[in-house]
Amino acid sequence: MLAVTILGNNSAIPAFDRHPTAQVVTMNEHLFLIDCGEGTQMQITKYRVRRSRIHHIFISHLHGDHYFGLIGLITSMGLLGRETDLHLYAPAPLKEIIDLQLKIADTVFPFQLFFHPLEEGELVKTDKFEVTCFKVYHRISCWGFVFREVRAPRKINPDMARQYSVPVSFYDELRWGKNFVKEDGEIIANHTVTDPAPVGKSYAYAADTLYNECIASKVKGVDMLYHETTYLKDLQERAAARFHSTTVNAATIAKIASVKQLLIGHFSSKYEKLDQFLEESREIFPNTDLALEGVTYRI
Amino acid sequence: MLAVTILGNNSAIPAFDRHPTAQVVTMNEHLFLIDCGEGTQMQITKYRVRRSRIHHIFISHLHGDHYFGLIGLITSMGLLGRETDLHLYAPAPLKEIIDLQLKIADTVFPFQLFFHPLEEGELVKTDKFEVTCFKVYHRISCWGFVFREVRAPRKINPDMARQYSVPVSFYDELRWGKNFVKEDGEIIANHTVTDPAPVGKSYAYAADTLYNECIASKVKGVDMLYHETTYLKDLQERAAARFHSTTVNAATIAKIASVKQLLIGHFSSKYEKLDQFLEESREIFPNTDLALEGVTYRI
Repeated sequence: MLAVTILGNNSAIPAFDRHPTAQVVTMNEHLFLIDCGEGTQMQITKYRVRRSRIHHIFISHLHGDHYFGLIGLITSMGLLGRETDLHLYAPAPLKEIIDLQLKIADTVFPFQLFFHPLEEGELVKTDKFEVTCFKVYHRISCWGFVFREVRAPRKINPDMARQYSVPVSFYDELRWGKNFVKEDGEIIANHTVTDPAPVGKSYAYAADTLYNECIASKVKGVDMLYHETTYLKDLQERAAARFHSTTVNAATIAKIASVKQLLIGHFSSKYEKLDQFLEESREIFPNTDLALEGVTYRI
Repeated sequence: MLAVTILGNNSAIPAFDRHPTAQVVTMNEHLFLIDCGEGTQMQITKYRVRRSRIHHIFISHLHGDHYFGLIGLITSMGLLGRETDLHLYAPAPLKEIIDLQLKIADTVFPFQLFFHPLEEGELVKTDKFEVTCFKVYHRISCWGFVFREVRAPRKINPDMARQYSVPVSFYDELRWGKNFVKEDGEIIANHTVTDPAPVGKSYAYAADTLYNECIASKVKGVDMLYHETTYLKDLQERAAARFHSTTVNAATIAKIASVKQLLIGHFSSKYEKLDQFLEESREIFPNTDLALEGVTYRI
């Protein structure tokens, strides 16, 4: 199961009860927090996200609306007695800020905080998931992320395996796709005795960015793309001047990248109603949804 | 008019929709923000505090629940185009944190931010108000504040002034308490021709602290004292071990200091209901109120 829960969908200034950016990706029992604007720890409580299951936090860039809530969240984790490791993937200078704040408050966490400076490519890889990082185009260094379920092992069909006399001792190798070679040299093709694993799903997050087609190549074919849409299309010039995107920009990237579904957010505080964001995006990319706070989108 | 509006009344971990510490003192047209826990800018919006009227911010100490919302608030002030000066009174190391965060985000404010490191004694003095600072007793350096309306000029009684032949040119000196000496040497006592100015009110804020009677001497006779009460009286040992106070501690300080009114807050997240805080404090100091979010207490 892959899903994303929106905790904050607004741009820089909180408005209309919309909060700065934060979202939680759920991949089976794993929770990944992406960005952590001010108030994220309250949103986590409000929407009953199990913070003890968050082991990885990803911060796209060091504008405050994407990280000012981080120090509060991790301080509270410490006060609540968390003991399990926490991995933080963020632009390198964030370490200096956090270290300074902890030193001045004389705070020592009861858990280990591992800091991983962002760089392009693979950030995390386990046998269940992988997270990769790509550059986006903002006023300061800024990054996007792709979350992928790693292909699970193939499923053995026991009846067929018995029929072709594949010994149980070879089942593990079968699961990972190997053919079986009998003593007489006959080859039993893997697919004859196994069924394919379910295909892993993928989710991409493109944080604050200018329109740039390079992003499409990075998120090619993902099941769901989140792309910022700070402005409606009539403010294309302002969007570009401020290194942000419009509805048209986001939907065009989704279309070029042939993603299956588009989620749009990071709405400017100048807009109270969001309907037009959806209308304008759907004109170009019909399978678009608004990222709404408290809503979980299954991928 | 002197009043205080509570924006956050909880201790370290936000809980039960209670927020970390922040409050706004209103003195006529001046607003003073005391402490600025995470989410203060949202609380300011929710309770319609006019942020453009805040020219002075006071931070008691550098535990996160008293300042993690500051960088978000002032960043938003900048994004909203504020141009008027802002004075920040805080423990010296906060400057380093703010400077680092601004540098990394490449942020330059459109207003001047003046940083004043806290030290005991007078922090601000104008002809309308004064703010002084005193030490409290916490795990790290921590400070309390006293806000006083400065005595207004006395009111001239024009009938009496004419009757005693005081020339209009002397009225300004009359207002500031001077006697008038006639040409024949006769002294017209000031109080015969003027009425007293209304007495200035005062409000004291004692942030996170151990019980210590020295605090009573610093807040002697104020009209209203805010004193932290993290715990109920049965947790006196825990309170002391964590450099916090109980209901009994706060009420005892109020009693020794002969203040007129006591406001209690900074409640631990372990308590959902607050009734017992009021009961226990009132046993010792009857004129006590709970600091409740969104409520304005007139002094």
